[in-house]
Amino acid sequence: MPSISERGLNMPASPIRKLVPFAEKARSEGKKIYHLNIGQPDIETPPEMLQAVKDADIKVLEYSHSAGFESYRKGLVGYYQQFGIEVSHEEILITTGGSEAALFGLMSCLDDGDEIIIPEPFYANYNGFAIAGKINIKPINSTIETAFALPPISDFENMITEETKAIMICNPNNPTGYLYSKEELEQLREIVLKHDLFLFADEVYREFAYDGREHTSVLTLEGLENHAVVIDSISKRYSACGARVGALVTKNKAVYSAALKFAQARLSPPTLAQIAAEAGLKVGKDYFDAVKEEYVERRNLVVEALNNMDGVICPSPGGAFYTIARLPIDDADAFCQWLLESFEYKGQTVMLAPATGFYATPGSGRHEVRIAYVLNKEELANAMECLAEALKVYPGQVNMLEPIMATYS
Amino acid sequence: MPSISERGLNMPASPIRKLVPFAEKARSEGKKIYHLNIGQPDIETPPEMLQAVKDADIKVLEYSHSAGFESYRKGLVGYYQQFGIEVSHEEILITTGGSEAALFGLMSCLDDGDEIIIPEPFYANYNGFAIAGKINIKPINSTIETAFALPPISDFENMITEETKAIMICNPNNPTGYLYSKEELEQLREIVLKHDLFLFADEVYREFAYDGREHTSVLTLEGLENHAVVIDSISKRYSACGARVGALVTKNKAVYSAALKFAQARLSPPTLAQIAAEAGLKVGKDYFDAVKEEYVERRNLVVEALNNMDGVICPSPGGAFYTIARLPIDDADAFCQWLLESFEYKGQTVMLAPATGFYATPGSGRHEVRIAYVLNKEELANAMECLAEALKVYPGQVNMLEPIMATYS
Repeated sequence: MPSISERGLNMPASPIRKLVPFAEKARSEGKKIYHLNIGQPDIETPPEMLQAVKDADIKVLEYSHSAGFESYRKGLVGYYQQFGIEVSHEEILITTGGSEAALFGLMSCLDDGDEIIIPEPFYANYNGFAIAGKINIKPINSTIETAFALPPISDFENMITEETKAIMICNPNNPTGYLYSKEELEQLREIVLKHDLFLFADEVYREFAYDGREHTSVLTLEGLENHAVVIDSISKRYSACGARVGALVTKNKAVYSAALKFAQARLSPPTLAQIAAEAGLKVGKDYFDAVKEEYVERRNLVVEALNNMDGVICPSPGGAFYTIARLPIDDADAFCQWLLESFEYKGQTVMLAPATGFYATPGSGRHEVRIAYVLNKEELANAMECLAEALKVYPGQVNMLEPIMATYS
Repeated sequence: MPSISERGLNMPASPIRKLVPFAEKARSEGKKIYHLNIGQPDIETPPEMLQAVKDADIKVLEYSHSAGFESYRKGLVGYYQQFGIEVSHEEILITTGGSEAALFGLMSCLDDGDEIIIPEPFYANYNGFAIAGKINIKPINSTIETAFALPPISDFENMITEETKAIMICNPNNPTGYLYSKEELEQLREIVLKHDLFLFADEVYREFAYDGREHTSVLTLEGLENHAVVIDSISKRYSACGARVGALVTKNKAVYSAALKFAQARLSPPTLAQIAAEAGLKVGKDYFDAVKEEYVERRNLVVEALNNMDGVICPSPGGAFYTIARLPIDDADAFCQWLLESFEYKGQTVMLAPATGFYATPGSGRHEVRIAYVLNKEELANAMECLAEALKVYPGQVNMLEPIMATYS
């Protein structure tokens, strides 16, 4: 039998999805599962987006332009302007989800053996795109003690080598929910200019900035025209994860042109979903205000409930719809599996994502889980009650904070 | 300014799409262009597929399973059975078009520096997926003199090295239209077993086998359970190129499991398009019979017209909807550009794909073009008339076959 590739072997299973078989078993046993493991919101997709697909008079479901509908790209120019981002439609490449934007961006800028620095914990799927291209991710630890703020810029300086080609952030952050400040971004601006690096920013949660704070795009930072590459998506913006429409946005013409060649090789992004995405451009401020208000209430509920549990630490994140909590447990992977396999409370349990999969440094995140607050408040309250009960009876409890802290020293 | 990656630089522009700017200019000047450069058929997508999307009651446009809808995969089991292909739904991975199936398949089986042997001319986008993974494509020349039949198996033997991991074919072939016989496939079966290689087969044109001949899938070849990896798509089957729904099909569990990890990293294939694809399973034999009859008539029209032109050679292909013609021209790239820039006949011109982009061997295909017979017969007849006129006045004519043949020696 021929052997598969090293990269196929090295590819990690998704930490968000790898417990799915245990969840399927739990469900088949009649347990109700609260899915806080995946960023699949219950918020309704704006109906006008789905209606646009129904109204489309299509005889032949054709390829679109490899860069996506020109009309949609022109519409996006106005969308970005609302955020102070000035780009032309020829600087926007429509992709099949933000995932493909990350893949094309990395492939266009980095070769095998090149290094990209990413604060950890980070969105686990970046590993997949890096492994596909044999690109080395160099993690810099951000910690729950600082609510996962940008690590000191000296940590980045120390990590830069001849092989370093880029720094990447996700802002607001998945999995931590941290919203980087303008000041933090200015620090990144300086270091990428100093070392002539690319600055990738995954900004798919742009709309989800809370407590009156504003999101800053790397595309608005002065002098970064040739350095900034933005990964974008409509998945979270409109609760339209299944559409698979994203975008790569950059003013660097060489990067755009290389990414377009990768885009041509896969022909085009999905046509039906682009119709929905284009209709989404007309979705008004009211929708986003209501969604944001809902998420802030959910965040407050979850963060308060977590911090009320014995031995649990959870910072209050400024954006996105995730939070990382440190729990008094021996092993997050074992705990999350145990929740599905061996625990129930009033016929219910909770599915969480072990944080280990979001760290590149072995051993990190062993006492942490990522929680996506993507369910309604009633369900979230039930889920938190479930989790509180679970922590009381979990056999692998670690009683106090000391032994956990030891692992961080 | 940071420099882009080598692979970004090395990535070839799509030979099918690179002339688009010239076409746009010609159109803006009022020329009618017959698009024979791209496999975008004018055949209508079965209306029940689009109706299924309209009828879907979707409140939240959610991610699907990373391997695609389970119901759709189960339905595909029956689809494949019609062709004598016995697979379970857990051996089918739904992808975003055949393109992604090729990418995941190559990434799962080959590392950077590994070699894959492909008869040339071949579908140009394979280059893109190979370059992304720094996989080396080793071409073996197939020739117009044999109508692009499988090259002698000794050519494959001679090409195999320590680095060779796979052989890949497209059957029926894009760009040549050649339909490999059972006997040819048996030869490939023997050599991949002998050297323990993967055998990739792009079978997206499975339905398009003409003249009463049957398509043979590599999945039906004995003993290839762990070697055969099929790339599939609904793009051509239902004239639904814009859906972006394909599949990777393999009985090799390690390959499937690696491909699934790549699939998890990009979350899921497009949801709306999967609804259309699943509805497509009910499309009956009548549809395919009518489509096949139409394509045979188109092929006959085009091949006859081409062979009636002075100095033109065009074999009659047994499948797909492409043909490669050798023209009495100095340079296919220059000719195809000239057709758009400098030629018109009754206000019309033709857009063709220069065959050079389908060859990996430099200099090959310089006198050949790929023609996709994807327009109705009236338009095809006009396009052929246009082409005949163009060949009469093209300044870079090569008068007789001798000088062309010299380049093949």
